Amino acid sequence: MNKSAFHQLSYGVYVVSTWDKGRPVGCTANSAMQITSDPATVAVSINHDNYTNSCIRESGHFAVCVLGVSSDPAVIGTFGFQSSRDCNKFDQVPYQVRGCLPVIDAACAYIACEVIDTMETSTHTVFLGRVTDADILRKDDPMTYAYYHQVIKGKSPKNAPTYLPEQESAPAGKETYVCPVCGYVYDGEIPFEELPEDYVCPLCRQPKSAFVKK
Amino acid sequence: MNKSAFHQLSYGVYVVSTWDKGRPVGCTANSAMQITSDPATVAVSINHDNYTNSCIRESGHFAVCVLGVSSDPAVIGTFGFQSSRDCNKFDQVPYQVRGCLPVIDAACAYIACEVIDTMETSTHTVFLGRVTDADILRKDDPMTYAYYHQVIKGKSPKNAPTYLPEQESAPAGKETYVCPVCGYVYDGEIPFEELPEDYVCPLCRQPKSAFVKK
Repeated sequence: MNKSAFHQLSYGVYVVSTWDKGRPVGCTANSAMQITSDPATVAVSINHDNYTNSCIRESGHFAVCVLGVSSDPAVIGTFGFQSSRDCNKFDQVPYQVRGCLPVIDAACAYIACEVIDTMETSTHTVFLGRVTDADILRKDDPMTYAYYHQVIKGKSPKNAPTYLPEQESAPAGKETYVCPVCGYVYDGEIPFEELPEDYVCPLCRQPKSAFVKK
Repeated sequence: MNKSAFHQLSYGVYVVSTWDKGRPVGCTANSAMQITSDPATVAVSINHDNYTNSCIRESGHFAVCVLGVSSDPAVIGTFGFQSSRDCNKFDQVPYQVRGCLPVIDAACAYIACEVIDTMETSTHTVFLGRVTDADILRKDDPMTYAYYHQVIKGKSPKNAPTYLPEQESAPAGKETYVCPVCGYVYDGEIPFEELPEDYVCPLCRQPKSAFVKK
């Protein structure tokens, strides 16, 4: 089996949000798809280990915040490489309440849903949501997962359905600097050593000093 | 609710195939996503009205054939705008058996699955498949649903989760020729009337004479 074939499936990049007893929580996701047209339903796949999973289960609602190519990619790191168990992710990003759910300002569109069914797998829950509200927030091209990988050079968190251990290997024969939190590989024109000391990881805002040479 | 927000979700373009008592059958789909990484599982959403739905249910297997931007777009029409009840779609397109399932040669990759769970909705079944085989067939960029709509100017079949009745309206103030089967709107530089008589719809191969002026 050639697992790289899995990467030929196309996805967007989303922040799936909900409430944790009144506190906004959420996580980065790429597995979201419309299931039915009328009534409209949308399914998302969320890892059991993601704190957001239990919060969606309890609240019975979730919003899919769609990121666009103009969205600040740092929100991917904020929501993808730390846990709402340990911090308030929404303290770091502006948001508004739309469709009774927390929607980050960085989103170009949102789809708010009420959970009507779930499907359990070994590691993820597929939440099926009836759409209760949806809107376009600004004109932008939706960010695809391919764009995230190819243009932003982002990696998949270990909880992602699409995570492959192979992605951690650095390009052969080239010395690289890698963010230890999100796996971002620095690929800029300026040599890494010459970057200003206040340089931070564009995905998860780790400081330059945290980067590891590989 | 602004339903156009649904179009901000990103998808690929696939042919989902299976066996109908030894006969290869399949349909075009855009709703497919990886659910778990290890063991790898993939979910697809197939309309109850699609003949392929009952065949996947009976055979317990399906393959996701991934279309690339270099794939002949006519296979989208062949598999999306006619039914395996009425014709043998695979008579019209070359295929091979990979992972014990029919995989069209036009695919750039395939993922073969055994059904391990299903989730029913009002109009669609979500099939959860454990991946039994997968491979890349040729180097190509996966075709995204956005590419299909924007570059190939394709429409969604009525059974698609992403179908919106609004898509059927022609651009205001412009006389257009529309394929009555797949909804393809002719948008070429040569005036439609001046096209050769053997012109066929690039998506579903309907003859020029079938096109309707709108």
